Amino acid sequence: MDNAGFCNETYESLHNPASDDELVDIAGATLDFSSTEDVPPLDPEYGSGYGNTGYSNGMTGNGVLMDLLDEPVPGVGTYEDFNTIDWVREKSKDRDRHREITSKSEQSTWALLHSISDAFSGWLLMLLIGLLSGALAGCIDISAHWLTDLKEGVCLSGFWFNHEHCCWGSNQTTFQERDKCPQWQSWAELLGGSSEGAAAYIVNYLMFMLCALLFSFLAVILVRAFAPYACGSGIPEIKTILSGFIIRGYLGKWTLIIKTITLVLAVSSGLSLGKEGPLVHVACCCANILCHLFTKYRQNEAKRREVLSAAAAVGVSVAFGAPIGGVLFSLEEVSYYFPLKTLWRSFFAALVAAFTLRSINPFGDSRLVLFYVEFHTPWHMVELVPFTLLGIFGGLWGALFIRANIAWCRRRKTTRLGHYPVLEVLVVTGITALLSFPNSYTRMSGSELISELFNDCSLLDSSQLCDYNSSENRPAGPGVYTALWQLALALFFKMLVTVVTFGMKVPSGLFIPSMAVGAIVGRLLGVAMEQMALNHHDWLIVKGWCSSGADCITPGLYAMVGAAACLGGVTRMTISLVVIMFELTGGLEYIVPLMAAIMTSKWVADALGREGIYEAHIRLNGYPFLETKEEYGHKTLAQDVMRPRQSDPLLVVLTQEGMSVGEIEGVIADTDYSGFPVVVSQESQRLVGFVLRRDLVISLDNARKRQDGVVSASLVFFLEHVPPQPFSGPPVVKLRGILDLSPFTVTDHTPMAIAVDIFRKLGLRQCLVTHNGLVFRGFHLEKHMSSHRSLQPLASMSVDVGT
Amino acid sequence: MDNAGFCNETYESLHNPASDDELVDIAGATLDFSSTEDVPPLDPEYGSGYGNTGYSNGMTGNGVLMDLLDEPVPGVGTYEDFNTIDWVREKSKDRDRHREITSKSEQSTWALLHSISDAFSGWLLMLLIGLLSGALAGCIDISAHWLTDLKEGVCLSGFWFNHEHCCWGSNQTTFQERDKCPQWQSWAELLGGSSEGAAAYIVNYLMFMLCALLFSFLAVILVRAFAPYACGSGIPEIKTILSGFIIRGYLGKWTLIIKTITLVLAVSSGLSLGKEGPLVHVACCCANILCHLFTKYRQNEAKRREVLSAAAAVGVSVAFGAPIGGVLFSLEEVSYYFPLKTLWRSFFAALVAAFTLRSINPFGDSRLVLFYVEFHTPWHMVELVPFTLLGIFGGLWGALFIRANIAWCRRRKTTRLGHYPVLEVLVVTGITALLSFPNSYTRMSGSELISELFNDCSLLDSSQLCDYNSSENRPAGPGVYTALWQLALALFFKMLVTVVTFGMKVPSGLFIPSMAVGAIVGRLLGVAMEQMALNHHDWLIVKGWCSSGADCITPGLYAMVGAAACLGGVTRMTISLVVIMFELTGGLEYIVPLMAAIMTSKWVADALGREGIYEAHIRLNGYPFLETKEEYGHKTLAQDVMRPRQSDPLLVVLTQEGMSVGEIEGVIADTDYSGFPVVVSQESQRLVGFVLRRDLVISLDNARKRQDGVVSASLVFFLEHVPPQPFSGPPVVKLRGILDLSPFTVTDHTPMAIAVDIFRKLGLRQCLVTHNGLVFRGFHLEKHMSSHRSLQPLASMSVDVGT
Repeated sequence: MDNAGFCNETYESLHNPASDDELVDIAGATLDFSSTEDVPPLDPEYGSGYGNTGYSNGMTGNGVLMDLLDEPVPGVGTYEDFNTIDWVREKSKDRDRHREITSKSEQSTWALLHSISDAFSGWLLMLLIGLLSGALAGCIDISAHWLTDLKEGVCLSGFWFNHEHCCWGSNQTTFQERDKCPQWQSWAELLGGSSEGAAAYIVNYLMFMLCALLFSFLAVILVRAFAPYACGSGIPEIKTILSGFIIRGYLGKWTLIIKTITLVLAVSSGLSLGKEGPLVHVACCCANILCHLFTKYRQNEAKRREVLSAAAAVGVSVAFGAPIGGVLFSLEEVSYYFPLKTLWRSFFAALVAAFTLRSINPFGDSRLVLFYVEFHTPWHMVELVPFTLLGIFGGLWGALFIRANIAWCRRRKTTRLGHYPVLEVLVVTGITALLSFPNSYTRMSGSELISELFNDCSLLDSSQLCDYNSSENRPAGPGVYTALWQLALALFFKMLVTVVTFGMKVPSGLFIPSMAVGAIVGRLLGVAMEQMALNHHDWLIVKGWCSSGADCITPGLYAMVGAAACLGGVTRMTISLVVIMFELTGGLEYIVPLMAAIMTSKWVADALGREGIYEAHIRLNGYPFLETKEEYGHKTLAQDVMRPRQSDPLLVVLTQEGMSVGEIEGVIADTDYSGFPVVVSQESQRLVGFVLRRDLVISLDNARKRQDGVVSASLVFFLEHVPPQPFSGPPVVKLRGILDLSPFTVTDHTPMAIAVDIFRKLGLRQCLVTHNGLVFRGFHLEKHMSSHRSLQPLASMSVDVGT
Repeated sequence: MDNAGFCNETYESLHNPASDDELVDIAGATLDFSSTEDVPPLDPEYGSGYGNTGYSNGMTGNGVLMDLLDEPVPGVGTYEDFNTIDWVREKSKDRDRHREITSKSEQSTWALLHSISDAFSGWLLMLLIGLLSGALAGCIDISAHWLTDLKEGVCLSGFWFNHEHCCWGSNQTTFQERDKCPQWQSWAELLGGSSEGAAAYIVNYLMFMLCALLFSFLAVILVRAFAPYACGSGIPEIKTILSGFIIRGYLGKWTLIIKTITLVLAVSSGLSLGKEGPLVHVACCCANILCHLFTKYRQNEAKRREVLSAAAAVGVSVAFGAPIGGVLFSLEEVSYYFPLKTLWRSFFAALVAAFTLRSINPFGDSRLVLFYVEFHTPWHMVELVPFTLLGIFGGLWGALFIRANIAWCRRRKTTRLGHYPVLEVLVVTGITALLSFPNSYTRMSGSELISELFNDCSLLDSSQLCDYNSSENRPAGPGVYTALWQLALALFFKMLVTVVTFGMKVPSGLFIPSMAVGAIVGRLLGVAMEQMALNHHDWLIVKGWCSSGADCITPGLYAMVGAAACLGGVTRMTISLVVIMFELTGGLEYIVPLMAAIMTSKWVADALGREGIYEAHIRLNGYPFLETKEEYGHKTLAQDVMRPRQSDPLLVVLTQEGMSVGEIEGVIADTDYSGFPVVVSQESQRLVGFVLRRDLVISLDNARKRQDGVVSASLVFFLEHVPPQPFSGPPVVKLRGILDLSPFTVTDHTPMAIAVDIFRKLGLRQCLVTHNGLVFRGFHLEKHMSSHRSLQPLASMSVDVGT
């Protein structure tokens, strides 16, 4: 697991002082992903936010704990960094908390109000997340527009205006030339005084490259200096976090600030990346920070993950202006535990965010959606053939892209390439800028390109792509052919450069580049189909539905279908992608072509490789993630997988009575297991419960410090009623409070498919194996250690066994 | 549990010969819901569709069973009627089947083709379900239109034309009077020759009532004679079936045929009911019948339920023309186990169905949606106040309706009222027809009413509701006031009559009546707001956003919001309702008002009673249903709930060796538990596995019949390796094949909240409780018996224990 890290960097290099200064202190985090927990010297402040042992209450029931321990030991029931949470325990804790508030609410008006405010705090939190994320997304949009335009020129009436805003004020321009106004000056005009000629072109070219390099340099430097977690799209890590892993600081305030700034810079630098994926990360950061305002969410890792699931929906909602699609994206792509209540709240938050963004109105057109399209021509059944072809292309491209990108990222990790991230970013930016300036379709930003390709040619459209001769059959004019050539070159360029861009040390999303590739291919095919239909009305396949002179083919629709197919091939999204596209067009009319292409794309891509890009990056980075979508295909039983094996040393167990503090400390020192089964006696091996290493260490430490007279010879009891001790002996240590009395067990004959299913559905952290009712043999699986590939995860777990 | 039944009838009365003739034979079904399974004499044909023991294979792994049993015993691994399926077992079975096909596919091309066709059979099935359901929904729409119009008159050019179609041919009518043409004659014109005057009115009145009575009489008689399961909306039962219960014949071909016919009759009779809920039942019947074409789905109860979940989505998709809303409805409201793969397939099926319906074009307007609306005026923030008021009304009405309807249904079950279902239907129809004829808003069908109320007043609209004076401020004309009075009366009437209608012995949906109530209230409030805004431009709350002469308020939007709020209050749908409404309007613009009203409505309704109408009917009818949405709120531990208690007789267990056939048969005869733990020995109580009563009975019976020399003294072994027996003794019976070697266990200290969670998430049928690793005490919970109310379910279970 030593290859773990972010944006393909090893973890150690990330762990610099700047990133420590996060909302939650990193208390001596272990630096490797192994199951060993190097329990730190107890930081008294560590547990401050977590310091309740509601879990133990819940587990022991009837308040037994309270009699045995005077006060909860701080730190018990919390998690180390880079560890997996126990969903069952967290949900138990929340249930207890909720029960307590409800039972108190009948006692006084104040408690009733508290209970009501507690019930509504979830909604309030959602509202705040929606407002904050929407506002941030608006700022990002506006700044990115401005910076992107700054590469080409500057506004004289105020340098803070972007090109469009700059020319709003000038009334002398006609609608056709609305982009040209005297206030906006290109760099050549400003520096050289002329806007024509080779010299001006070269000045503009150089300034374009200079700005691009400057922006990307700033982005990569800021990321490296202040928040290494801010790089990449963040979605693989968020998937991992939502599945129950803890990465402190990944969603902290520094990550938020730096990611927001560097995202703007990276997008403006003209690199082949989008802001849609990182917006999900930004929204999750907002959610995580706002969670700290509410005890309910601050203290419970499971509840906080519910909020983060909603935040993922918010991110997509503001990225595309598609709240329903965002919710389905969260459900389908990133979330692990997504109850219906969260679905409804996510939708609320997504809606609030979308409307906040609209009221900021960054695009200046009061549109909610990123790409507003309105088609007028219905499609015909015959067109399903080219749409399916687009689906096949999308699938092929998706599979190819994933392989190429993963191979490149692996190369970056394993070779010297990875040692020069800043240089890498500068070189890629330089090449991108150098090659993209001459071609107008690569010079414009990815979302502008997609917008143009999606658009139908109406009368107002002055684009090259719409340069049709005005005869009856509308044959393509010279402009169209030029545009097609340029688009073909742009396609080739985008395909190559995206592979090396995704995974660099800057915030980078994949949605826009993937869609751009698909949109270009779609538009090319669409124009080809259109010309065929226009020029060959008598062909059999055209006859009957496309009469002469009619405008029967919409190239924009082809671009849209192609974009969806490519995005589907890369991410393997299905229903959420259809719904996002549906929200862009606003009508059910075009769902069938989209569905056909996305289905084909997914089938083709799945046939070439099961993983989507996010799963591939999760595996590349070695995050522990138990895939929920795939069935566990093997026929193994628990007894085949469990550890220790027959030949291994015996299972290390503790007994519920008779062991001394010294003996237990010896066991802890000798082993690195993260928990120990507690049995009735070494002879019988009958299971009583399970105790976590971390809780045990903290409790023994606490007992030695706070309880008078505890020495190594003191006996430790996990029993409910401690038998009377001889008066002269050292005081006993009672640890029933930290004992999990309801550990999950399966029999050794349980098929692993069922065991994996239990892990997934209940969110377990460990599970013990029994044989004929005894812990005759036993082991624990740690989901923590399991990656998502078939057998390997569970076989590579740290496990204890004995016979 | 003796009050169980359908449409509030006791089950026994339903069990008439006609209903037996379903696709799956009812082989001696038990008539009560208790956990006892009166295992029938083995019907040789019974297991034909199920006769594999893939489960046992899966559980014992390594093909051990094959060595011990020469051939699978027919019937082992199947379920009785009115029992709960074991999801884990079914999914294991499917996994084994899939694994077998995959492993074979590498051996030959034929096997590879089989593997591919198996993978695509799910999609093919979805396509067929979509086509069939869409076609059926189209037929139902067309027939219901025709029959509804037949109550008022007949078309002379062909009695099979409805009013609209009849007048399509006649060109002499103007657009304004498009409903009036000489070919269409009211009953008065046809019978008395005159269309004016009191006599004609009375003739029409009488014919209207006569037709209504005839239709409803036919409907109730058909339901009683051929398919008692066809009554009601079917959604509560489908929820129960999807949660894992088996009701044979509920989704059979007779139910489908009769429900389709009687639905048309019931809707046409003018009763206050809708066809939307029953369409879900119809789609599920289609799905269940089509499942029989594919081995994969025919033989596996869990896989079939995935298909049924998709069918529920299809039902709503064709009912409203809202495929995305349908999928979310299935996810939110009816489904229990809904993996992402099913989500995507459901969407496909829902889309196919919606487009099939559109190509049939029952409404004659090429619209996909049931109520097409297009608003032009944006709403203002101030209007959120009346929208929230509508939400409060919706919540109040929802809670009140549920209470009143459940009280009435309970009365029907417990008093003599329930003995005269035909008479009840006739009386209610008579009263409905009598009262609804004079008022034009009640005379029209529910969906026509809603359509009219949703509509914006444009110039073409000749409705009374749009009778505005044409002065600048557009004050309401006399027509509007008349309309308001009539609407108020219609509201009062609908509210009363819906309470007694839902639950009668005819197919009846709730969506349309609930929406009608809300739409009327919304429209009334909308008109009031409009008049206020028109007449008082200077009022503070109006000023600033509604200038004089402008049309700032859309009463149609209020009707829509009111309809959504009432439907939300009754059914407690949230996100699916918003999305259905969004698909009706096709724009995100009006989502915020809808969301505000639906949220308020749900909060208000939940404060007055946690259950939606479907959950209430599930409880009323005593179906075993473990609610997935509510948290289990109590603090009990498994040891507090488990049976037998300390004072009860010992836990009845079998030992893995040493018991004879006679002894086991004695245990079976003496007890009525549906399964027995198998332990190492009576002394040690160490758990080996669990054996189901049904499997045990079938296997012993089979052994006695087929295996030579098996007598009562024959020993039964659950061991893998049977120790050598004396030569002289009777042959032994080896039953390891039917032993579940991986029964689910929890410790006695497990909080019930966690136990309930395990039951829900894994779909368990039983669970054993252990103490300190031994089956020292043990019990099994049967989800089967658990209703969804907090503690009661689990306490009322049939459970065995011993100390």
